Amino acid sequence: MENKPVETTYYHLKRCPVELALEVIGGKWRIPILWKLSDAKTVRYNELKRSISGITNTMLTRSLQDLERHGLVKRIEYSEVPPHVEYSLTDTCQRLIPALKIINEWGKSI
Amino acid sequence: MENKPVETTYYHLKRCPVELALEVIGGKWRIPILWKLSDAKTVRYNELKRSISGITNTMLTRSLQDLERHGLVKRIEYSEVPPHVEYSLTDTCQRLIPALKIINEWGKSI
Repeated sequence: MENKPVETTYYHLKRCPVELALEVIGGKWRIPILWKLSDAKTVRYNELKRSISGITNTMLTRSLQDLERHGLVKRIEYSEVPPHVEYSLTDTCQRLIPALKIINEWGKSI
Repeated sequence: MENKPVETTYYHLKRCPVELALEVIGGKWRIPILWKLSDAKTVRYNELKRSISGITNTMLTRSLQDLERHGLVKRIEYSEVPPHVEYSLTDTCQRLIPALKIINEWGKSI
């Protein structure tokens, strides 16, 4: 038990797992971000920003920080010239991608 | 084309299907409501309210109206004594349930 992430304790309080999951991936931008990240192994910040219509730098940065804090996204900083940052999905998040694929197909049909 | 639902036009504007789907099912309450409705064939309003912790009557009523308007939820009014209202998922929404099942399992594991 000691090695499990803090979030596990929520589940032991018998919260609905769907509601718990939505605290981590809910909101306007997090699922679209995860979906764009699932397209490639790693994605640069600017590329990510361009691919999500209407997202501001503030919202993208904040959402990425939240996702990183919850262990869904990895941030890799390259100190090259020019420096750049790339993002990728963690294994925890990869397990969620089949759900996003279904949502994507469903979104095409509505 | 004429018989297709209005929403289809959004997709032809090349919007991301995931973002489009989230306009219909996004927000704090809609996915939890759909998840609770997927448990049974029909669910009474009061039963639904009790099963979602923290939801107010205003939010539940508004969310159900939104879901009904988008063709995801059916509302059946029984003029019995006492009168009551039951809700169930439409076939369009049933196609989304496999995604919610994955999110539910994922929510147990985080």
